[in-house]
This record gives sequence, structure tokens and C-alpha cells, in this order.
Amino acid sequence: MQGSEEEIFFTGEGDKAMREGVTFPEGFLATGLHCGIKKNGKKDLALIFSTCPCHAAGTFTTNKAKAFSVLWSLKHITNPIRAILANSGNANALGGPEGWEITTSLMTRLSQELDISETNLLFASTGLIGTILPEETIAGAFSGMKKMLSSEGGSDAAEAIMTTDRFPKKISLTTSIPGKKGKVKIGGICKGAGMIHPNMATMLAFLTTDAVIDREALSKALKAAVSKSFNMITVDGDQSTNDTVICLANGLAKNAHIHPETPAYDTFSSALTELCVELASMIVRDGEGAKKEIEVRVSGAWNEKDARRVARRIAGSTLNKAAFAGEWPNWGRIAASAGMVCSRINMNTLSIAVCGMPVYSGGPLPYDEQGLRKRLKDKKIVVELDLAKGSASAVAWGCDLTPDYVTLNMEKE
Amino acid sequence: MQGSEEEIFFTGEGDKAMREGVTFPEGFLATGLHCGIKKNGKKDLALIFSTCPCHAAGTFTTNKAKAFSVLWSLKHITNPIRAILANSGNANALGGPEGWEITTSLMTRLSQELDISETNLLFASTGLIGTILPEETIAGAFSGMKKMLSSEGGSDAAEAIMTTDRFPKKISLTTSIPGKKGKVKIGGICKGAGMIHPNMATMLAFLTTDAVIDREALSKALKAAVSKSFNMITVDGDQSTNDTVICLANGLAKNAHIHPETPAYDTFSSALTELCVELASMIVRDGEGAKKEIEVRVSGAWNEKDARRVARRIAGSTLNKAAFAGEWPNWGRIAASAGMVCSRINMNTLSIAVCGMPVYSGGPLPYDEQGLRKRLKDKKIVVELDLAKGSASAVAWGCDLTPDYVTLNMEKE
Repeated sequence: MQGSEEEIFFTGEGDKAMREGVTFPEGFLATGLHCGIKKNGKKDLALIFSTCPCHAAGTFTTNKAKAFSVLWSLKHITNPIRAILANSGNANALGGPEGWEITTSLMTRLSQELDISETNLLFASTGLIGTILPEETIAGAFSGMKKMLSSEGGSDAAEAIMTTDRFPKKISLTTSIPGKKGKVKIGGICKGAGMIHPNMATMLAFLTTDAVIDREALSKALKAAVSKSFNMITVDGDQSTNDTVICLANGLAKNAHIHPETPAYDTFSSALTELCVELASMIVRDGEGAKKEIEVRVSGAWNEKDARRVARRIAGSTLNKAAFAGEWPNWGRIAASAGMVCSRINMNTLSIAVCGMPVYSGGPLPYDEQGLRKRLKDKKIVVELDLAKGSASAVAWGCDLTPDYVTLNMEKE
Repeated sequence: MQGSEEEIFFTGEGDKAMREGVTFPEGFLATGLHCGIKKNGKKDLALIFSTCPCHAAGTFTTNKAKAFSVLWSLKHITNPIRAILANSGNANALGGPEGWEITTSLMTRLSQELDISETNLLFASTGLIGTILPEETIAGAFSGMKKMLSSEGGSDAAEAIMTTDRFPKKISLTTSIPGKKGKVKIGGICKGAGMIHPNMATMLAFLTTDAVIDREALSKALKAAVSKSFNMITVDGDQSTNDTVICLANGLAKNAHIHPETPAYDTFSSALTELCVELASMIVRDGEGAKKEIEVRVSGAWNEKDARRVARRIAGSTLNKAAFAGEWPNWGRIAASAGMVCSRINMNTLSIAVCGMPVYSGGPLPYDEQGLRKRLKDKKIVVELDLAKGSASAVAWGCDLTPDYVTLNMEKE
């Protein structure tokens, strides 16, 4: 991390606490409401708006079955962006060819309402696959939404993108960029719960910043942040049709322009990564049926790719996850998971610690089983592996697998 | 399949029904007993013996954390083989450096008892990882085991390799090879349950045949059989330290020698594949906590690799598995699983049928939801995908994911 702790201030501690999540940075407005997609009356439509055009960067699902909303955003992500529409309750995916027509029609109607070009709009959806988006239900809410846009609407937007999430996820921070007028703000909201996987799965994250930064630097910083956060979390190994992370920068902080490979970029990039790691951690803690957060720290790897692969495999293995739910010190399963994905691993040099207690070092170590079982009752379990092969490292996060996860996913939402 | 149904006769229908599993072919003896590795008094040690030297072929786990038993068998698989020792209750893996010494010592002691060279012995283990094999407990049983070897011992051997399996798995068949003295027999036993994954996981399978066949043809036939059977089943996506499939051929059937790329080879290879598919199917039906068998048939793929990948992903997805447990027609999740692993897939040409009922063809189809839900109550669910891209196909098998699976794996065995 380049940004020292002194430079980063999380909100909720001082003024403007109501400007939460995506509306924390200057010039961003948002709202969220129930338009009628969800049958239970909960919020299902969010709008994020910038008072001036933004540079945008995005990462999207690599699933070949992409939602129409993803296809729209992929097409327009390099344009100057003014707003993001996001709905929950319907994935806008696999609903047949008319899905694209409805998508473009909705974007046209929203752009007219907001008096901007439709090419300056992005779109994201989450919810059930295979059902046509109810165009009139959604478009009928546009006029009211425009009036509701507010600098205090970040919290409503965070609620409106929830599906099986148990709590809304929002965060914001201020960081000092070297140079005059150096304070820039970053905010974010996301939704997760279930079906989360490395390389992203049914997860939406919207990030906003008032930083002055060029598109190239913004894209680079977002890619770095996602690779260390959302791409290192795993709930059930599936990847959705809808995964979307979008970051908008409107430049209203008037800081010295951030270019790639400068100290200013490093500070901004570190802050964005920190914010994304916090959001990703909220998603894992909210995994369907999850009772524990699992953090896997791999060090001593030959290269980062190996380190990432081992960390994610351990965090993602259903056998490991079930063992953590059972609060069982399963180092054998941990070693087997590592051996499954890394051909450079050597069981004679490998070391494993669970909850800070060394359990394996080239062979099983004697350890206080009662003591370890007690530590395994904690909400957060840390697993450390030292491959003793090189200097690369990675951290992945997962959750335990409980009978509740299965029960939740046996049911039709 | 080259072998027509007329050529294959499964046992249990005629004479020699007591010569089950690995002792069905001529010249194979076996036994299984409780030596003391398991604390519950159940059988934990099996010995399979041929009255004359065999050609052997094997496929083993690709996990880098290989059990010492696997390392031993890998070293000796190309030798003439006389016997296989297999234990349950202890994986003989990750127990530290003395594991290899104990392994070689056990092999030496068994070879002395059987009056053969230790280089003609293979070894396989399954059970808990990270505990040293109890050498004296095992070696103490050798003398008694030798006396118990019998042509009716196949069933005891099948029992002795069980871990969390609910039933022993054994099968045998007779097939007619073109030419004089053409009847050859093939038998097999295996263990599975939990942790089963494509590319093999805690799964042991031992196959025997009295066919006259050269090593090259035997290896080729085993590789083909495994790729269409054990490598196409998935229970929980993990891969073990111990997976082993071994096939022994002792030549006592005196059939015309089977060489690769002959009609005789095709007949033998088809029969071996059929036998392995049956054994693999037993493993899936016995998946930990499983209530349903899922068969995924992919056709119209660009190539076999794509077809296999899509079929296995669908059968292996925890979200799909949970939905099948809930008897929910989740075609959206099925399509998303396919899109996740196959970049050539096109959602506009894709067709999906569940339990014989078309549900998607370039878009959602209207279907009788009540009728489909009724069919989803069956013990066996068939999912069919036509990618409409080419002529390659594949079949994979999995099981549903129930809360019981999680409960079972939360506990220490």
C-alpha cells in the first residue's frame, strides 16, 4: 500500500456523513426506489448521476452468456458518462432477442428524461435469469427518479441493488494526492451474496470519485484494485451473466491531474484498492448462509499467478468450506487444495498455519488441538501458507459453507 | 460403443455369481479384512492377487500432494504385477518423510510373505490425510491374508476399500473378442463418495481382466475408459492426494492377442469403458448426502474438449447442484454455467432440455412448469444441451448438493 494510514479517512466519523457511498464525492447524486420489478415491495431501481461528464472504467463478467445490460455498458464504457441505471430483481439475461430492444429502448427513454445522450449512459442488472425486463414498469419510474436525485441518495441506491444480500454495502474515503488542492474523495456501493467467484460473479459494484484523472490511469487503477479485491473473493465458484464493476471520475476535486506512473497515481490507486478490498470483504461476510469469513494468505510463491491460484483454491474448495463451518483444523484438505492447482509446490518445504498456529512444516507438527478448535470458533479464520519457493504473495477471501447455503439455493428466489 | 449389447453379459445372472468384482476373471484371487486401522471394526485392508504375472496400466491423481502409496505405484506400474495392496482409514499422505520408509518396508514385508519381488507389487490408500500408517498393524495381517486369498474374495476386497461409501461397488462382465477362444472377462471394484471430481479425486478403482493384451493396448484402453467415466463424474470439485485406477491383465483367457487399432481392441476397449461407466455411476449415486444422480449430455460442440468442459461444469456447479436438490428447473443457471467455461458458445443457437422437456432454444420456451417439477422429483435427472456449433459430444455425471453433504463434511471422520 502506497497510501499511508494518515492519508485515508473513512467516513461516518465526521461531517457530511449523509453523503454516503457513491454520493460522497463532489458532484454525484443518486437515488433508489421500488418501481415494481420485485414483488415484495423492496427497492429495485437505482440511478447514479454526475453533474458533469465523467471518465469511466469498467470490468465485466467473462461469461459468454452476458446480460443485455452488460452488453450495453461494454459498448459505451469508453464514452464520457453521466449516469448509471441499475436494477435488481431481473438479470436482463437470456430472455431472448427482444431483450436487446428493451434495453436500448429503456436507455433512450432515460436519456430523454435526463436530457443527455443515450451514449453517455451505462446500465447494470441483477436478479433472475431468463425473464424479460418489464419496460413500462421501469420507464414509468424515470420521471420521479430524476426529481429524487440527491447528494444524500447513495444509501438508497445501495439498497436498490440488493438481491439476497442481508445488508446494504457502501463505503467512502478521502485521500490526499500530492500537490495543490490534493484532497480527493472516493465512494462505492456494491451487492453480492451467493454465486461470488474469482473473476467476478453476480456482483455489482459502482465506484465514484471527484479526482482529476485521465481515462488510462483510471482504468489501470481499477484493474489493479479489482484484481486484489473482487477477483480474490469466492462464495460458490459460479460466475454470473451480470458481473459489473464501474468507476466514474468527474474531476470536480480540481487536484493536480493524475497520470499513470506518478506518485499521485500510486496514492490514488492504493486508496481505490483499499476501498474495493473493504467492499469485497463485506460481500464475503454476507455470503449466503455464511457464518465465518476465511482469509487465505499465501507467501513464498514462485510468482503471483501461483500465489493467487493457491489462495483462491483454498478459499473456494467446498470441502475446506464445510470443514471451516465445522470448526475443524483441516490442514490436510488445505494442503491437498494447494497441491491440486500448483505444480511447483513441494510438500517437503510447505508450511501451514491456521489461526496463527503452525500445523504443518514439511510434515505434521504437534499442536494444541483443543486450543486451535477454540480459535476456530472465531468469526474470522486466517489460513497462512508459505510455499518457500520465491517471494510472491496473494490474499484471497471466502466464507464457510453451511447447510443454510444449500437450503437457500434449493429454493427459487 | 463398438461392442454391441449381444457381446456383453453382466454377471449376477448366471453361474459363478460368487466370483464377483476383481475375482470374476480367471486367475484372480482377493480378500479383505479388518486389520485395525479403522477404530470401528470395519474392514480396512484388501489384497488382490494374480496367479501369474500381469500387464498393468494405471492413472493416478495429478495433485502435487501425492500419497506415498501413489508414489510407490507410479514407480512400479510398468513392471509385471502380481498383487495390489489397498488400505482404507489412512491416506498415507502428508505424514512427513517417514511415510516413504514405512511404505517401502510394508511392500518388502508383503513381497516376502507372497514370495514375489516387491517390484511386482502395487499399493493404494484412502482415508485421513496426515497420519502415519500403522506399519505393524498392517504387516501383522499379511500372513492371515495370504491364507484367505480366494476366487470368491472380490466382495470382501470391495468392502475393505470403503470409507464414507454407503455400499460396496463391484461389477463384472464377459465380452466376445473376435477370433478363437474369444471370451474374456473383466471385473472391477471401486470406492468413491465425496471429494470426487473430474480428473479424479479420492477414488480408488481396481480392474482385472484375463484378456491376452499387450501393455500398450491395455494402457490405451484404460485411458479411454477413464476419460469417459471416472473423469466425467464430479461430487464436490476437489481432487485428492490418492486417486488411483489400476487395471491388471493376466492373459489366462488365451484369446487371440489384442493389439491396438484392431477390431479386437475396439471390442475390449468398449467393454472396459462400459464397465468403468457403470462403476463411476455407482460412485455418483453414492455421493455424500446425495439424493439424485444428474446426467448432463452435451452435443453439437465444436470439439470434444469444449463438450467435456461444459458437461462437467454444469454437473459440478454448486448452484446447479443445490437447485437440483430443490427440484427446481434452473435452466438459467445451467446456461450461465455453460457460458462460464466455453467461449465458443452462442446463446442464440443454444438449446436446453431438462428431463426431456425443451426449456430454452435461443430464448426461453414456454413449458409445463408443474409437469417439469414433477419429473424433477425422479432419482435421475437428465440435462441436455445442444450447442449447435459442431458434432462433438460428451456426457458427465454429478449428484445434487444437499444440506446433508455439508453436515457430513463439517465433521471429522
